[in-house]
Amino acid sequence: MILRIDRLLTELPAPSDPDPVGASAVQELLGGKFGEMSTFMNYTYQSFNFRSRQGARPFYDLVASIAAEEFGHIELVAATINTMLTGSAEGTPGQSGALADVVGTRNTQQFIAGGAAALVQDSNGKPWNGDYVFSSGDLIEDLTHNFFLETGARNNKLKIYEMVDHPAARALTGYLLVRGGVHQLAYARALENLTGADLMKLFPAPRIPTDKIPECKPHIKRGEHLKLYRFSPEDYQELAAVFNGPHPETGEELFIAEEVSPEGAPAYDLPPQPAVFAPGPEPKEIEEIAAKQRKAAGLPKKPTGTVANA
Amino acid sequence: MILRIDRLLTELPAPSDPDPVGASAVQELLGGKFGEMSTFMNYTYQSFNFRSRQGARPFYDLVASIAAEEFGHIELVAATINTMLTGSAEGTPGQSGALADVVGTRNTQQFIAGGAAALVQDSNGKPWNGDYVFSSGDLIEDLTHNFFLETGARNNKLKIYEMVDHPAARALTGYLLVRGGVHQLAYARALENLTGADLMKLFPAPRIPTDKIPECKPHIKRGEHLKLYRFSPEDYQELAAVFNGPHPETGEELFIAEEVSPEGAPAYDLPPQPAVFAPGPEPKEIEEIAAKQRKAAGLPKKPTGTVANA
Amino acid sequence: MILRIDRLLTELPAPSDPDPVGASAVQELLGGKFGEMSTFMNYTYQSFNFRSRQGARPFYDLVASIAAEEFGHIELVAATINTMLTGSAEGTPGQSGALADVVGTRNTQQFIAGGAAALVQDSNGKPWNGDYVFSSGDLIEDLTHNFFLETGARNNKLKIYEMVDHPAARALTGYLLVRGGVHQLAYARALENLTGADLMKLFPAPRIPTDKIPECKPHIKRGEHLKLYRFSPEDYQELAAVFNGPHPETGEELFIAEEVSPEGAPAYDLPPQPAVFAPGPEPKEIEEIAAKQRKAAGLPKKPTGTVANA
Amino acid sequence: MILRIDRLLTELPAPSDPDPVGASAVQELLGGKFGEMSTFMNYTYQSFNFRSRQGARPFYDLVASIAAEEFGHIELVAATINTMLTGSAEGTPGQSGALADVVGTRNTQQFIAGGAAALVQDSNGKPWNGDYVFSSGDLIEDLTHNFFLETGARNNKLKIYEMVDHPAARALTGYLLVRGGVHQLAYARALENLTGADLMKLFPAPRIPTDKIPECKPHIKRGEHLKLYRFSPEDYQELAAVFNGPHPETGEELFIAEEVSPEGAPAYDLPPQPAVFAPGPEPKEIEEIAAKQRKAAGLPKKPTGTVANA
Amino acid sequence: MILRIDRLLTELPAPSDPDPVGASAVQELLGGKFGEMSTFMNYTYQSFNFRSRQGARPFYDLVASIAAEEFGHIELVAATINTMLTGSAEGTPGQSGALADVVGTRNTQQFIAGGAAALVQDSNGKPWNGDYVFSSGDLIEDLTHNFFLETGARNNKLKIYEMVDHPAARALTGYLLVRGGVHQLAYARALENLTGADLMKLFPAPRIPTDKIPECKPHIKRGEHLKLYRFSPEDYQELAAVFNGPHPETGEELFIAEEVSPEGAPAYDLPPQPAVFAPGPEPKEIEEIAAKQRKAAGLPKKPTGTVANA
Amino acid sequence: MILRIDRLLTELPAPSDPDPVGASAVQELLGGKFGEMSTFMNYTYQSFNFRSRQGARPFYDLVASIAAEEFGHIELVAATINTMLTGSAEGTPGQSGALADVVGTRNTQQFIAGGAAALVQDSNGKPWNGDYVFSSGDLIEDLTHNFFLETGARNNKLKIYEMVDHPAARALTGYLLVRGGVHQLAYARALENLTGADLMKLFPAPRIPTDKIPECKPHIKRGEHLKLYRFSPEDYQELAAVFNGPHPETGEELFIAEEVSPEGAPAYDLPPQPAVFAPGPEPKEIEEIAAKQRKAAGLPKKPTGTVANA
Repeated sequence: MILRIDRLLTELPAPSDPDPVGASAVQELLGGKFGEMSTFMNYTYQSFNFRSRQGARPFYDLVASIAAEEFGHIELVAATINTMLTGSAEGTPGQSGALADVVGTRNTQQFIAGGAAALVQDSNGKPWNGDYVFSSGDLIEDLTHNFFLETGARNNKLKIYEMVDHPAARALTGYLLVRGGVHQLAYARALENLTGADLMKLFPAPRIPTDKIPECKPHIKRGEHLKLYRFSPEDYQELAAVFNGPHPETGEELFIAEEVSPEGAPAYDLPPQPAVFAPGPEPKEIEEIAAKQRKAAGLPKKPTGTVANA
Repeated sequence: MILRIDRLLTELPAPSDPDPVGASAVQELLGGKFGEMSTFMNYTYQSFNFRSRQGARPFYDLVASIAAEEFGHIELVAATINTMLTGSAEGTPGQSGALADVVGTRNTQQFIAGGAAALVQDSNGKPWNGDYVFSSGDLIEDLTHNFFLETGARNNKLKIYEMVDHPAARALTGYLLVRGGVHQLAYARALENLTGADLMKLFPAPRIPTDKIPECKPHIKRGEHLKLYRFSPEDYQELAAVFNGPHPETGEELFIAEEVSPEGAPAYDLPPQPAVFAPGPEPKEIEEIAAKQRKAAGLPKKPTGTVANA
Repeated sequence: MILRIDRLLTELPAPSDPDPVGASAVQELLGGKFGEMSTFMNYTYQSFNFRSRQGARPFYDLVASIAAEEFGHIELVAATINTMLTGSAEGTPGQSGALADVVGTRNTQQFIAGGAAALVQDSNGKPWNGDYVFSSGDLIEDLTHNFFLETGARNNKLKIYEMVDHPAARALTGYLLVRGGVHQLAYARALENLTGADLMKLFPAPRIPTDKIPECKPHIKRGEHLKLYRFSPEDYQELAAVFNGPHPETGEELFIAEEVSPEGAPAYDLPPQPAVFAPGPEPKEIEEIAAKQRKAAGLPKKPTGTVANA
Repeated sequence: MILRIDRLLTELPAPSDPDPVGASAVQELLGGKFGEMSTFMNYTYQSFNFRSRQGARPFYDLVASIAAEEFGHIELVAATINTMLTGSAEGTPGQSGALADVVGTRNTQQFIAGGAAALVQDSNGKPWNGDYVFSSGDLIEDLTHNFFLETGARNNKLKIYEMVDHPAARALTGYLLVRGGVHQLAYARALENLTGADLMKLFPAPRIPTDKIPECKPHIKRGEHLKLYRFSPEDYQELAAVFNGPHPETGEELFIAEEVSPEGAPAYDLPPQPAVFAPGPEPKEIEEIAAKQRKAAGLPKKPTGTVANA
Repeated sequence: MILRIDRLLTELPAPSDPDPVGASAVQELLGGKFGEMSTFMNYTYQSFNFRSRQGARPFYDLVASIAAEEFGHIELVAATINTMLTGSAEGTPGQSGALADVVGTRNTQQFIAGGAAALVQDSNGKPWNGDYVFSSGDLIEDLTHNFFLETGARNNKLKIYEMVDHPAARALTGYLLVRGGVHQLAYARALENLTGADLMKLFPAPRIPTDKIPECKPHIKRGEHLKLYRFSPEDYQELAAVFNGPHPETGEELFIAEEVSPEGAPAYDLPPQPAVFAPGPEPKEIEEIAAKQRKAAGLPKKPTGTVANA
Repeated sequence: MILRIDRLLTELPAPSDPDPVGASAVQELLGGKFGEMSTFMNYTYQSFNFRSRQGARPFYDLVASIAAEEFGHIELVAATINTMLTGSAEGTPGQSGALADVVGTRNTQQFIAGGAAALVQDSNGKPWNGDYVFSSGDLIEDLTHNFFLETGARNNKLKIYEMVDHPAARALTGYLLVRGGVHQLAYARALENLTGADLMKLFPAPRIPTDKIPECKPHIKRGEHLKLYRFSPEDYQELAAVFNGPHPETGEELFIAEEVSPEGAPAYDLPPQPAVFAPGPEPKEIEEIAAKQRKAAGLPKKPTGTVANA
């Protein structure tokens, strides 16, 4: 089971100019074959299906805790897309022309099926599907797969970084490149530990050093490229048995974070987009009803949740 | 972001007779249109895409926290399938005939693609896909959808209960019927609160009372049909504003659990199935390597994780 | 637009022994690439998309009216599947084991997603999709396609006839082979009229004469292999301009039926299957509510509809 | 079975400026998850699969006759798309550059697979599929679904209305919003009648009154928002038992139309688009052949069909 | 089995201005329902599945050898797409904005999943799939299909010719129209030989003569519209038994080429596109490693392969 | 381009007892994610899309020539499936019950869509699709993928070997395990050469030595585990630059075969299966027509092709 913390893994910029075409490209990092849905679901199902957990505990702990971090990644990509779409559907609901600006966008369903929001699709509008999950149960093979998956994921993050210059997309890819790089490394180290093979010379893959990307630098400075979090109040204590040794590019020592998870940051409370009826054609009415209910339930007058733009 | 707790939401029986055909049917509850992947992903994306969170806080909290519980549901269905498949692939790896018993099973990929394990597919072997996610951003509409989704999900749980008599499947459906029923109710209540419509006479839907199912009774006895958990250390404090009033079937008062989540139970550590190479053709070797690494990392001699059959 | 007549194009036998495995094979004739969904939708969209209708009126009339007949074909295949599944889900709703008999059937979704009923899928459980529709707008090419489609459809009907010996399946294929044969011929004749090519020597395709199939004989005796119906109260008056000449196998003259459509037959009112909650776990309750509402609306005491087993 | 009437349910404007990008968006209303293919096929299969028709006759009649109206809706959406594409492929067939103007359109297959015409796809170019059909056989559940489906459909019609300002798209959505609204209401009323729940406060959903849309007004004036048609010469006599009471927004009384169907209007005979070979690279030749055949068949010299631009 | 020859079937122009939007349209000829993947795979599987090869040898030889030519066609379409994409990803790898020019292209995956290169998709970005393969085993039916498939393929080639004016696309379609026309004819002739039907009046289909296309003329001049190649060092000797008689448009005699295959032409060695890391972010390094390895293996200093731009 | 040789890469046994259920499992090796369609198409498209061929010639040669061998693998898997299905459809065409024996088989489409023959599907009946092709253009990444793909493929071959004991399936997997192992090794060596990483300790993967499989031994004896073929009359001369060094399991030296390809073996001429109309309901008629045509074309009286059972 999981507990949920209402914070993003890292800070994203506030909405600025909307960029629906860019947002359609960022979908690849969410619902693409190498997107975060794939990393999240692959490791999640591998952990569910893991046989002989006790016998192979450090490996189980590795896969299970990285899976938990990946939930935060789908959350982050979705938040980025939503940020980029904010401002593109502010017209009057029910009025001809209110969405005329986006009729030529690449992914119309972000507005028709969604509320100017992320979809579980890739950059060509194809839905993510369960066929993207590899979970053979053969530990060596699953780790080989995971190393390859992270390599493809790193490739796609680099491409989106090159392709989309919206500040939210740049912040997103800067962060994901650092943390995805840790996962890529973790699986390679696990595979080395299990077989004796030497994979460190495969790094960086693709052959572009992470520390050359300006948006990665602040995260590297904080050491985010070197540590794994357990992402659990009490479990997954054996990560250190497989995640250790020097970083293949910098030579710094890898380690397990003492804190359970990054501190993260509150999300922006994204404003209504009435032309797509999100959260409804008349957001004020919803607010009033919510206020009334909150009062009836004896809750404080001010909403209890924390948002970046409170 | 999430934290992960290495326990199942409820106890499942230990593996007994394997039942691959039954396990292929249970897949509907995992990767079917109305399976737990759908409930998990629908609410997760609705929470990601929620606009005006502060203004509509109690509704946001509801969707976000139920999403968190649903992760535990996919975990539970996967564990059930894995339990049911245990014992069906114990032959010698690399030997002709080692898997001959399952050549006629309904879902061969549970053995070919998986390690006698769950797949992200439905009962006809079709992968789950992102098209099953509805996230319009229009709060009333999303809640209408969610009520319908839970109704379809309850239907499918009842059908699987009728169809598969393996003890693990019966334990699973008994639990899911109770907790899914709470979610069905929660969305209906939210919709009532928001619109003034009266939906309570739609319960139970389908028209089969949960408390007639023997496997549901222990959970009902513990009050699991009446409460929502926050599934968060600190967030989602406003559930009481929408989840309240009498239960439509029993008249008992609905309430928010004081504890953050159910206590749950440790999972069984499922034994290797060497004929499908899970966790490898030679599980002992993996165990030895793991032991060596654990030692090198200064970990205790005994694995730190907790399992039901420790 | 259409008007609907609550009769089947031909009589089907009453439900007898259920045959879920056979019913899963018959799905190919409904949702397969060459099933009736494909013939129905191909001709329907070709008629919608037809350019220069007045200039090419006889061809438009041909495609549009055959499309109308094909609706009756999907109705007939669905009725056959439903007949074959009747009796397989009569257990007590909500009781463990009520559906145990069908856990090993080929298409479990006929029971989980459906109410012991037809799905929009093929014999391997794959959903029909819009990619099966060919509508190029180029008349010669569309007719070439339609001739090929009917050839594939005839092949599949023959195969199902050979494979499934349930009386309903035999009655279905006997009828469809005769009427599908007329459509195959109609498109070939249209193509001949348009180009001067001579296609009659391609008949029968596959090379199995229809009149050798015992179940086809009664329909042939009634001349159903020779005539086209307009399937419209007033439209599609120009069929005779393309559907004429001798039948390639029998030499009899083709003609346009004077009656608008076949007389057809009422459908059986299929009994409830409570184990799949169709029409509900408590069918009697629905009946009582319906009776009350009918009374309140001033309708006659006895239901007004006609069914075969009234 | 059905009879077909060669008229559209309502009048559409004649082709004017082509709008391929707009036409790609309108596809959502045809082949999208909430498009008219979905409403048509859902109700059609629910009527095919309906168990205990006599016992639940008014409900059967409701679903079956609405299904018939939906055929007219797919016809209308296709006609709209075709109208919008007319004029975009008028170049010389077989000449380089003849289609250069549309190489950058969103859905190239409207020109490559189709003859400047509608496809069975959504606005992202994904084919409609049978997975979109929900037909559980459980009457309450099917009605719940149908209410939800119509809600999603209304959302999408509103969005397309806002997004596409081509006159044909505006006429289409104006009409569909009114008639789809009736279906949404009919299913809600049926559900109320069956369960006693009170759903009227859910209207309008989404929360945008239909009568505020200028293009809806003429239809509302004619009372099209208040009545159901039987769409059958003789069947479906029991609609009044479930479709009755006041309209939730206007308070006017709902009723069953005396006429079998709307009068409708003839379709425009859309001109050839030679650059996509529709109806052929040399439309004149086809016309001459058709004329010759019509003559040989003793048909009147002038085509018998009726079109808006005769 | 096959042997591979490192030459294209015909010459393509060198890369010039990049045209990503055009390249997205050309994908239809690769991965579309009527693209070259379909012709290649249909004939390949029909040859694999052919029963009674000896008894029906000339037909087997026909299908098997045309299949071999089709491999050359997928190669040619891919080369065209790659040529058209060359120049669009020349920016600095790992630099923000390096791919900004293509963020609005129709198929972003040509850059994100591919290295500015062809994908196994159609012009709407949908992957080719095995459902497009028809292989009934019934010879007459397979030939009927193949004639129809080539007709649809010819239609699509003509449309792409009209739509995309990039020199590589024009060269491609000019060649494919001629050679695809031969296959269309070959299947029609085989069908005539087998049944006695007369299909020659169906040519050309669509009704646009190949010899009116300027880009086809050079190939026609060389007689490429009249001959079949065996595409085998020793096999497929019986083609003449089915491919013979006069060409339906020109009256010239069809014949079997004496040479095993066309001479073809070397491909251009397409330059690196570093912004998509093809063949890597630092192509020079790869070159140096390759040189070193070649030396160590005793290979000549200059690469042994032949390319057009050597 | 390719030339085709009408021989299989290795000998398969003659048809014996039919095994449709086993044949449905073997489909995984043809159309599964890790089946031979995937290996064939991945390497084929990587070779098509290869940038800087001259600069990276040995790597291009490697990928391009292995692609050619993979064609022989899809041919071999199809031949195996066809062999296993022979004998299951020998009934009288057009007769009820002729296919009754296979109505319960796992993949009915092998008989309905195919002529008792292979489909482009996996073991769950899902079509292969272009999404399974990875062709990033980044050489290191493509090689990483290919090593992983071959590992998954080896896993699946081992599983099918364990699961299906039909002699044809055993012969198939015995051969494929040896040759697929060579490809797995080739990609690992290429990756080592390019990066300096040491991957040899990953072998065998999965951890089951090939030489323990009895059906592999004859091929190992002939040295088939040590050599690469060029599969080209003249091209791909630089394989030795990347395929060299000792075999990781046996220590024997890897080498490039002097012969262009294995000698292979003629295929069995599989007998008609009249109940599925392959090659037609009346195979004799086809034979007579073929004989007549062959005579007219001046061909020798006896068919020129070579088959195993001549």
